[in-house]
Amino acid sequence: MTRADLISEIRKKQSFLCIGLDVDLTKVPKHLLSEEDPIFSFNKAIIDATHHLAVAYKPNTAFYEAYGIKGWQALAKTINYLNTEHPNIFTIADAKRGDIGNTSTMYAKAFFEDLGFDSVTVAPYMGKDSVEPFLSFENKHTILLALTSNVGAFDFQTKKVDATEVYKEVLRTSKDWKNSHNLMYVVGATKAEYLGEIRKIVPESFLLVPGVGAQGGSLEDVCAYGMTKDVGLLINSSRGIIYASKEDDYARAAAHAASQLQQQMKAILDAG
Amino acid sequence: MTRADLISEIRKKQSFLCIGLDVDLTKVPKHLLSEEDPIFSFNKAIIDATHHLAVAYKPNTAFYEAYGIKGWQALAKTINYLNTEHPNIFTIADAKRGDIGNTSTMYAKAFFEDLGFDSVTVAPYMGKDSVEPFLSFENKHTILLALTSNVGAFDFQTKKVDATEVYKEVLRTSKDWKNSHNLMYVVGATKAEYLGEIRKIVPESFLLVPGVGAQGGSLEDVCAYGMTKDVGLLINSSRGIIYASKEDDYARAAAHAASQLQQQMKAILDAG
Repeated sequence: MTRADLISEIRKKQSFLCIGLDVDLTKVPKHLLSEEDPIFSFNKAIIDATHHLAVAYKPNTAFYEAYGIKGWQALAKTINYLNTEHPNIFTIADAKRGDIGNTSTMYAKAFFEDLGFDSVTVAPYMGKDSVEPFLSFENKHTILLALTSNVGAFDFQTKKVDATEVYKEVLRTSKDWKNSHNLMYVVGATKAEYLGEIRKIVPESFLLVPGVGAQGGSLEDVCAYGMTKDVGLLINSSRGIIYASKEDDYARAAAHAASQLQQQMKAILDAG
Repeated sequence: MTRADLISEIRKKQSFLCIGLDVDLTKVPKHLLSEEDPIFSFNKAIIDATHHLAVAYKPNTAFYEAYGIKGWQALAKTINYLNTEHPNIFTIADAKRGDIGNTSTMYAKAFFEDLGFDSVTVAPYMGKDSVEPFLSFENKHTILLALTSNVGAFDFQTKKVDATEVYKEVLRTSKDWKNSHNLMYVVGATKAEYLGEIRKIVPESFLLVPGVGAQGGSLEDVCAYGMTKDVGLLINSSRGIIYASKEDDYARAAAHAASQLQQQMKAILDAG
């Protein structure tokens, strides 16, 4: 999917919502556990109930790997369902990969080719030659961790490197990498006040923003500091939507929670 | 596996060799491709031919994920074969994971519980609360990326943070994390001269050292700067061993290449 396609979908749906599909089988309604593939059944119900409200879905691979081969199968079925039924929806493998060149190429193949995701999240610690293999795929997007939403972000990311913070060094340096037009960045909503600084370095790039909702970030603050003329934001919510109810009405509850966020987004977009 | 078990195995085999099982189906003998599970067949042959020479095996997960569900199945069969046939061998999932707390817990479950690895490699960028969930598993080891073997290591890892390099900040900070006795570190062989500095910060920790062989690092230099009284090193070789021959004699050639490294290690230990 191209950047233009994503922007078009955002305008059409009046939404820049990404829904995190982080399925924990201890948190889903019990009756699903007797199904053949409870993870996929859960995801399908969530997607069916929310696809008109969201422009992106983001399965976090950890939640699939924890269930072994069955988990990987459920991940493959989920992305295949999305690509078949909703080809205009942007898909993100939240995998946080990154390794030396030839290994990153294998990860890129896994997520872009074998599974068929539009994008993958990548950790920057190993530098340029660990990220460029992902960037070489046309119309595929690499979402680099910049400033994450967790407490540990202050351990290294905000430390000063030659008087500039590490996360800014990541943003600045990565702009010079080959095919950097395929880069997006993860910036946590819990650090909305940093978004002004971030926009000075990457004024146009899309930012994937986790941390609204369960982690305490504010949608209004993120938009105030981070929105661009092309919107330039994908706001992720996982637990706040998919576990809005843990009873049999979970899909309807998810749609309601997603709709509330979409309405807030529409209001912000309308306000211009 | 405990640290003491690993040291005992190193002494017994007079080896601190780790063999990287990074199977690329374009590089294996053609006749394997007609087998039901060519990746596992290849790994099994390599393990059968080299298990007396190595103390650790390290499948890099990228090479399995690139083959989708079949790849994940081959990974599960490989670790199961190692745990069943060679329970004294240390196993490393080279996965370079790392995410916010609840997600890291899922990754830890995937590699320590579902698959049954002794250890996993983890990226430090997201800080303390992204790593501690891995450290809470008893007799499981978390191998943190410190100074990697690739060119991109100079993009961020060697940059100065308040007058100290980022990788040293990672080493220093991580020592204060809960259950940090379960930490090991990745330090590339291509940066052997840095090992003296690293040993000042982590004098006892095991270091997983990639980059000997194909990437140009020197075994002698690594040992000169990095070896401790408990050895404290696991030297990884992947391509140099598993692709020593791409013909039908690949297993014998792998054993020969592994034996050459083991003999060099024995000589270093004897000179001790």
